[in-house]
Amino acid sequence: MRDVAVIGVGLNEKWGEIWEKSLRDLYTEAALNAIDDAGVDHIDSMYVGCMTSGMFVSQEHLGSLMSDYLGQNPVPATRVESACASGGVAFRQGYLEVASGASDIVLVGGVEKMTDVSGDEATFALSAAADMEYECYQGITFPGLYALVARAHMHRYGTTPLQLAHIAVKNHKNGSMNPVAQYGFEITPQGVLDSVMVADPLHILDCSPITDGAAAAVLCPLDLARKLSKKPPVKVLASAQATSTIALHSRKDMTWFDSTAVAAEKAYKMAGKKPQDLHVVELHDCFTIAEVVVLEALGLVERGKGGTTAESGMTALGGKIPVNTSGGLKSKGHPVGATGVAQIVEVTRQLRGESGPRQVKGARVGLTQNMGGTGGSCVIHILEAA
Amino acid sequence: MRDVAVIGVGLNEKWGEIWEKSLRDLYTEAALNAIDDAGVDHIDSMYVGCMTSGMFVSQEHLGSLMSDYLGQNPVPATRVESACASGGVAFRQGYLEVASGASDIVLVGGVEKMTDVSGDEATFALSAAADMEYECYQGITFPGLYALVARAHMHRYGTTPLQLAHIAVKNHKNGSMNPVAQYGFEITPQGVLDSVMVADPLHILDCSPITDGAAAAVLCPLDLARKLSKKPPVKVLASAQATSTIALHSRKDMTWFDSTAVAAEKAYKMAGKKPQDLHVVELHDCFTIAEVVVLEALGLVERGKGGTTAESGMTALGGKIPVNTSGGLKSKGHPVGATGVAQIVEVTRQLRGESGPRQVKGARVGLTQNMGGTGGSCVIHILEAA
Repeated sequence: MRDVAVIGVGLNEKWGEIWEKSLRDLYTEAALNAIDDAGVDHIDSMYVGCMTSGMFVSQEHLGSLMSDYLGQNPVPATRVESACASGGVAFRQGYLEVASGASDIVLVGGVEKMTDVSGDEATFALSAAADMEYECYQGITFPGLYALVARAHMHRYGTTPLQLAHIAVKNHKNGSMNPVAQYGFEITPQGVLDSVMVADPLHILDCSPITDGAAAAVLCPLDLARKLSKKPPVKVLASAQATSTIALHSRKDMTWFDSTAVAAEKAYKMAGKKPQDLHVVELHDCFTIAEVVVLEALGLVERGKGGTTAESGMTALGGKIPVNTSGGLKSKGHPVGATGVAQIVEVTRQLRGESGPRQVKGARVGLTQNMGGTGGSCVIHILEAA
Repeated sequence: MRDVAVIGVGLNEKWGEIWEKSLRDLYTEAALNAIDDAGVDHIDSMYVGCMTSGMFVSQEHLGSLMSDYLGQNPVPATRVESACASGGVAFRQGYLEVASGASDIVLVGGVEKMTDVSGDEATFALSAAADMEYECYQGITFPGLYALVARAHMHRYGTTPLQLAHIAVKNHKNGSMNPVAQYGFEITPQGVLDSVMVADPLHILDCSPITDGAAAAVLCPLDLARKLSKKPPVKVLASAQATSTIALHSRKDMTWFDSTAVAAEKAYKMAGKKPQDLHVVELHDCFTIAEVVVLEALGLVERGKGGTTAESGMTALGGKIPVNTSGGLKSKGHPVGATGVAQIVEVTRQLRGESGPRQVKGARVGLTQNMGGTGGSCVIHILEAA
């Protein structure tokens, strides 16, 4: 397999309720920004990560649609879906295509247009990431599922609502320095605890929002990157993916994401790195409790101690291991198909030293962790400044 | 890139309105048949081709779901979508993963469960393969779009409704020898012309049906195939994919599928083969006119002469180049996400000499052509008995 590098990244201008731009506009805007950032004059192939454009805007066939609107016909273009990990998995497919030698310059984008439907419809569409027949049709949706994880974690390890609140506070603080962020303002721990309860113990400020947005990255072989790229290339050290049961009730342990643990183990081995070698991490904080469990599954903190990480400052900017410097899903927003690619965008910029006020000084190795559903799928990438 | 072989194939038992089996049941049944056919005791990775399980059965995240129900967690599992070419594109992703060296044994499956909704709802869901905003919301759905192609072809080349009818008759004759086929009975040219008009000039017997079904194939490196496989391995000589505008009205020429022509040219080059080297072809006859245009775009007949191919016997079993020996989408059925993989199943069996009454004698090289929408995407594979 060939070594692969990220040579360009981009987002659409602003994440949030973007009523004046359609699905195709958002993807195209992010893609053009990534292509411009890479400085390439063509692409050989495309991937589109998207969870459920069918249920949100009644449009499938996104490979054809996006290559068309980007003026790239007849290049091959493929849509990839793994629920909220769709973007990360699309990036992995692009990585594999370049690594295989089948293509040289591959554009990977992720997109979701979630605000064209009502809140109830959006909740139902997102439920398609869980086991519709055995979970959602029985009356539980994602806030309830993650609330079960939180309750179990609290019961076993003594994790508290205030600890969870500190995770939201930390991510909003980071997001306040990210102009793209949907909710780029700071919040307080008491504000989280006073916010409306969605599914006990998760308040609304423990939950990531419904978002329109897109993200894109350009990949090519590392040796070509050194010739092509205007900016320092970022090497993809590892790409690893794993699955778990789609239904939370089928897991042996509700306080653990085994797909993250398995993918992390594979990724560290492939990269020749350990958790303590990482300088920056973007992970899937769809709910505050998710950041707690993922930090444990990534081996960044002892099992059961994930709740302590934000309150102690360990995961803050300037802490031992800054996590979700972009603001994370919580503050930046969570257009589900775009999130995994946006994590690559953030880490790439960190490793290039382009992150302005939220720059992690001297960051050379970063990790992205993107998962679908309650961890039914997970994809992890480790990147290094080349 | 490593040479890749198909070492196992399978379908679920019967295609049609399968009310007693759900989406996950269909996929799992086909997958187990393919794994059994391959004789392998594990798989390293999985792909699921599916167009719109979200719109048909409100379920996404099919990688997690299917790896779970197949008892394969934590293997990586990815859902791929390219409308009605989803299966073919999933096969291509599996091919790339094996070719890259990232995985050795990859299961590729395609599935669609289309009959749990009303006919109107199914027509709407399928419209998501076209440009929803600029085609379907303006009132046209797929029979109308392909009727426009047929009218233009008739106007320019003198193609007739009777010629189209002969394509349906030929495919039903083949399908009558395929026990899986949804409509495995013979029809007559007059019967087609007398059947109800759906979108002039296309009668209902010019149209492929709404189908529940699944198909699967197991891939591995060619050198490993010779050790692992119970049956003669079939080598993947070429994999090529292309896109075109998603909307038919954006094309320069409505009588031509440029994505098929581009992918075919790439595939022939990669395989070192010409159209006249092929012994058997499975192509995307979603409507009879599609077989006409695809035969031309594949270079199997002179441009404008596609209409003559079935009436002359050229594409019949025993003809110069047998096409759609499985019965094609027309008779076998068209579970959109499964179709591309089912084409691989049919050609693999043909190249192994396992096709019984519909066996093409001495078949050693075969081609599959699978397309999305009105040709907004196309994926072509060329296989050879190894």
